Amino acid sequence: MADIVLRAAPLTVQAFAPFGDVIETEGRSWRWINEGTSQRFDDLAQIDVLEGQGRPLMSIFRASAQSVPFRVCALERHPLSSQSFYPLDARPFLVIVAESGSTPIAARVHAFLSSGQQGVNYRRNTWHHSLVALQQTSNFLVIDRAGPQENCEEIALDGDRILVTTG
Amino acid sequence: MADIVLRAAPLTVQAFAPFGDVIETEGRSWRWINEGTSQRFDDLAQIDVLEGQGRPLMSIFRASAQSVPFRVCALERHPLSSQSFYPLDARPFLVIVAESGSTPIAARVHAFLSSGQQGVNYRRNTWHHSLVALQQTSNFLVIDRAGPQENCEEIALDGDRILVTTG
Repeated sequence: MADIVLRAAPLTVQAFAPFGDVIETEGRSWRWINEGTSQRFDDLAQIDVLEGQGRPLMSIFRASAQSVPFRVCALERHPLSSQSFYPLDARPFLVIVAESGSTPIAARVHAFLSSGQQGVNYRRNTWHHSLVALQQTSNFLVIDRAGPQENCEEIALDGDRILVTTG
Repeated sequence: MADIVLRAAPLTVQAFAPFGDVIETEGRSWRWINEGTSQRFDDLAQIDVLEGQGRPLMSIFRASAQSVPFRVCALERHPLSSQSFYPLDARPFLVIVAESGSTPIAARVHAFLSSGQQGVNYRRNTWHHSLVALQQTSNFLVIDRAGPQENCEEIALDGDRILVTTG
């Protein structure tokens, strides 16, 4: 049993690629639509709901603020769908994920910090922490899945003390 | 040819029911999730992408601000999908729709004002105006559809001068 301290890295497309999509406009291509009154930044997240087994579900999560260092006690994953989160209050939040692999999961955890102008879309079956708001209670628009089968697996990380910092 | 002046009404679930969903937390039921760290306001919009004919598409629209009175020159509808808009900058925006029917469409136009804490989801085949931001350039998270078939019909409203006010 050891302390593992992770400093949350800036959330970038490249660093987050193994885990899913970064939903943002910064640096992305766009086109004019609606007679030149809007810019469209298209196709920012791969919404993945296995066809015929469920439907995409839109919800709002209101997350209370957590303090840092933040202790990671468990992760979850959704075998039947992606899950996306977009911040509605423009506040930074923590994005904690784990690579797939066969080594102990504690050694595979990564932490990122959203700028508050960035959402994330966890790819189907990607281990991730539940929503971790910072600073204040914050709202997020969430797209995941409704359907008959169970779509959440959880794993406890109680062997090591994993602490995420933002500083 | 006549002037029709419409004052945008407050956006409420009841008034907007013929056209689609109001995406909001106010007055909605919720449940605790994630060990009591988040409230989940579930299933706020019926995302309707005809199965097997396309996929749900997530985009961000950046809309320049329009002035009021706002003239309605055209409406559009999407025969193959719903289309949802959620404001990311918490600013009011105009929601302009038309009932289905056989009378001249100009007489069937309705206008609503989102508080800025409310999104909308236009039901499949519902006539609506493209995004009308107010005050400042504003971002919106949009869920519609990607697929091979054409999914936009447009109708010009040039017989009458339809003006929408917010005052």
